[in-house]
Amino acid sequence: MQLICYICVCTKTNCSMDNGLAKIHLSVDCAVLGFNGTRLEVLLIRRTGIEDGQAFHDMKLPGSLILDNEELDDAARRVLAELTGLKNIPLVQFQSFGSINRTKDPKDVHWLEHAQKAHVHRIVTVAYMALVKIGRGNSRDLESTEALWVPVDAIPPLAFDHNDIIAHALEHLRALASMDPSILYDLLPRKFTVTQLRNLYEVVFGKRLDPANFYKKMTQMPYLVALDEREKGVSHRAARFYRFDKNIYNKSRL
Amino acid sequence: MQLICYICVCTKTNCSMDNGLAKIHLSVDCAVLGFNGTRLEVLLIRRTGIEDGQAFHDMKLPGSLILDNEELDDAARRVLAELTGLKNIPLVQFQSFGSINRTKDPKDVHWLEHAQKAHVHRIVTVAYMALVKIGRGNSRDLESTEALWVPVDAIPPLAFDHNDIIAHALEHLRALASMDPSILYDLLPRKFTVTQLRNLYEVVFGKRLDPANFYKKMTQMPYLVALDEREKGVSHRAARFYRFDKNIYNKSRL
Repeated sequence: MQLICYICVCTKTNCSMDNGLAKIHLSVDCAVLGFNGTRLEVLLIRRTGIEDGQAFHDMKLPGSLILDNEELDDAARRVLAELTGLKNIPLVQFQSFGSINRTKDPKDVHWLEHAQKAHVHRIVTVAYMALVKIGRGNSRDLESTEALWVPVDAIPPLAFDHNDIIAHALEHLRALASMDPSILYDLLPRKFTVTQLRNLYEVVFGKRLDPANFYKKMTQMPYLVALDEREKGVSHRAARFYRFDKNIYNKSRL
Repeated sequence: MQLICYICVCTKTNCSMDNGLAKIHLSVDCAVLGFNGTRLEVLLIRRTGIEDGQAFHDMKLPGSLILDNEELDDAARRVLAELTGLKNIPLVQFQSFGSINRTKDPKDVHWLEHAQKAHVHRIVTVAYMALVKIGRGNSRDLESTEALWVPVDAIPPLAFDHNDIIAHALEHLRALASMDPSILYDLLPRKFTVTQLRNLYEVVFGKRLDPANFYKKMTQMPYLVALDEREKGVSHRAARFYRFDKNIYNKSRL
């Protein structure tokens, strides 16, 4: 049995590759998704920097390099709370992004170096996803932060590879929902109409659904409980509210 | 709009926290799972080190620190090929493990420092999973490597947090299979008996299944194609072989 060099998995006793190791910084980024009744939205934060002597303003996902003594999950929670004010949101790791190219844009490199006062060579980020009822991040909560909700179909070019991370988050949401549609109810308010539910299905799965068929199929589901309450103050015919009963749903899947 | 310090997300112009950043090394680890007909197995590699003047021998997942100029997926493929000889295996990232405690065992720390000739403070690993037909990693292929198959229910204490990573890989397999059982056929040989299939279901989901009911239900599935071939050289009644037809399976799910 040979000692295996842990650097380059060769079997040399004195490996010369020890300068080949990646000098990497680690960050976390949070893709927090919400649904406003018609469109999926993602929570972004405004970024300001200086490039070629000019100020620029763009946006990024809430994220940050992690500290020496913190766990990954704790870093994600800390960063989200500090940048957006949101707390007690279940954040689930979904993928790590470590492409060499993600920190190649000079604008991003300079912004990092200015903020960190050090040369940052490469950053691998562990991306987390959360699904929230959009009332949780309403205007008043976010006012004192740099955070804002942006529809996912109207996101401008973001810092680093954050457009790509959001695309992967949406794909992950689609995959999860196609296997367990109950997660979609994390995005709806506690009381919702069948139209709102259909809108959500349509934006997640990217296809139009026949309203009459959808209504008939969904209202037959035992876990969709009709409430004695209708919309108020709408110009169209006021629709009935429903709620999602998770207990009934879980029993129906046994 | 304020410049946000990228280190600690404060808004100070001169952040004093720049020594709080995690000095992290990044690695990849591969959990390659196979099925031997009755038990799930994982591919491990032998490790040798010296602790308190004594040689020790244990095992770990195939893994390594990543190089400066390589992508994460490329690192996973490189490491697997170099340590086990296995190539062209679809490796899928499933979780990153970054607990501060994962590199706290002195035995592991010393082994890293000996191998790397540098102080390694913290390693975050991006874990990949693969499902292989166990014939692919047969004895002859692995002979020139330090790799070996170990049943997942008989794994001794491994290096770092690799027992934990394997537990998560198994949980991930269970979750994926409960939503899409077709992935289980990646673990079976091209021709398999219903008994082998049932054994696999039982070990993945952790529960006994009635053989007669299972046989009746599965042989009715259009994607399980009976072959004109039976087991040979067995002492029990030779069972018929079946194969999994992915095209038929996909059509049945539309």
